[in-house]
Amino acid sequence: MRDIYHDELDDIGKQVIEMAKLVAVAMDDATQALLDANLALAEQIMTGDRRVDALRVELEDRCFQLIAQQQPVATDLRVLISTIHLAGDLERMGDLAHHVAKIARLRYPEAAVPDQSRDVISQMGAVALSLVHKVADVVDGRDVALAQAIEAEDDSMDALRRKLFTLVLSPNWASGTEAAIDVTLLGRYYERYADHAVAVARRTSFIVTGQRP
Amino acid sequence: MRDIYHDELDDIGKQVIEMAKLVAVAMDDATQALLDANLALAEQIMTGDRRVDALRVELEDRCFQLIAQQQPVATDLRVLISTIHLAGDLERMGDLAHHVAKIARLRYPEAAVPDQSRDVISQMGAVALSLVHKVADVVDGRDVALAQAIEAEDDSMDALRRKLFTLVLSPNWASGTEAAIDVTLLGRYYERYADHAVAVARRTSFIVTGQRP
Repeated sequence: MRDIYHDELDDIGKQVIEMAKLVAVAMDDATQALLDANLALAEQIMTGDRRVDALRVELEDRCFQLIAQQQPVATDLRVLISTIHLAGDLERMGDLAHHVAKIARLRYPEAAVPDQSRDVISQMGAVALSLVHKVADVVDGRDVALAQAIEAEDDSMDALRRKLFTLVLSPNWASGTEAAIDVTLLGRYYERYADHAVAVARRTSFIVTGQRP
Repeated sequence: MRDIYHDELDDIGKQVIEMAKLVAVAMDDATQALLDANLALAEQIMTGDRRVDALRVELEDRCFQLIAQQQPVATDLRVLISTIHLAGDLERMGDLAHHVAKIARLRYPEAAVPDQSRDVISQMGAVALSLVHKVADVVDGRDVALAQAIEAEDDSMDALRRKLFTLVLSPNWASGTEAAIDVTLLGRYYERYADHAVAVARRTSFIVTGQRP
């Protein structure tokens, strides 16, 4: 009986990694769709988000069933409760990729991102991708040191967001209010994506150490 | 033993209501601080948010302990797991009130909201308040019908956000890009606050019916 239980626990862990990989690809594709004004890619991300949503529901139900049937305590219970949180954060990261894709679709055939802000948005996309890849490794290896590196990388996302504000509010901004608003919201979506990556890393540390970081 | 357990469960329920009331006051005050450029009030909200954050941690720990010690199944387990979610949503609503207050503080002694957009922002504040009051009633009475009314009211928040976009992008907008960006982000914060209210209502329906809405 305990073997089936641990198999199920391992399988749940694998599904969390699968979610992390899906939302990594989603945000990477969303950044590409945005910079290249690629409508087909934007729509593909929006459809693909349903799989992420479904995985979250499935993970939550599996954790619930396992708690009800096996009545775990201490670390095993902490793993299952934390997994419910991780699934929630990862689902939200998928939603944020979906929001980015939606702005790309809204402005098609134009690019939503004016030339002046391409570099910063492209860097935000790169940081987002690097963060989520680290997050998958943290979850996979329960690596507390790597979880701390994620916090530092999140600071660079915040710095990029400040850079974006400066750009949009400078007298040299030549792309008007609508583009300024698009770019501001995009900055917010990347920043929130990074925040949720940090939340996943912190939860994983909590699983390992039992201490809230 | 079962009596202490049910007392603790009741007490946890009361603490959720307390959180809902705190984030109701926080958003109401934040709207006032914003419209009146009231610095002292804005700072009070930002400090008060720590209490909401602490309540969330406390609630999560209490639910965890209760699951570990009492090993509940079926409805009781669903209540406890859902309460962990409710606490997370309510904490986030507190954060969003904090974000609104921060914009009020940032623009002080000016009002962050230009005259043209005062009405819409004020209506968003009123809808937010009405939503969170209903949410407290839903949680208190596990009222599934009222949970559905919350979904309808959330639609009116979305309509207000679209109105705000139209306003900010109209040729009559006379307040410049910075104010346009502030107002856009404010709209986003109110909308997200409403989304989390809906999430709380849905979770509560789930507790009662066992069906995902």
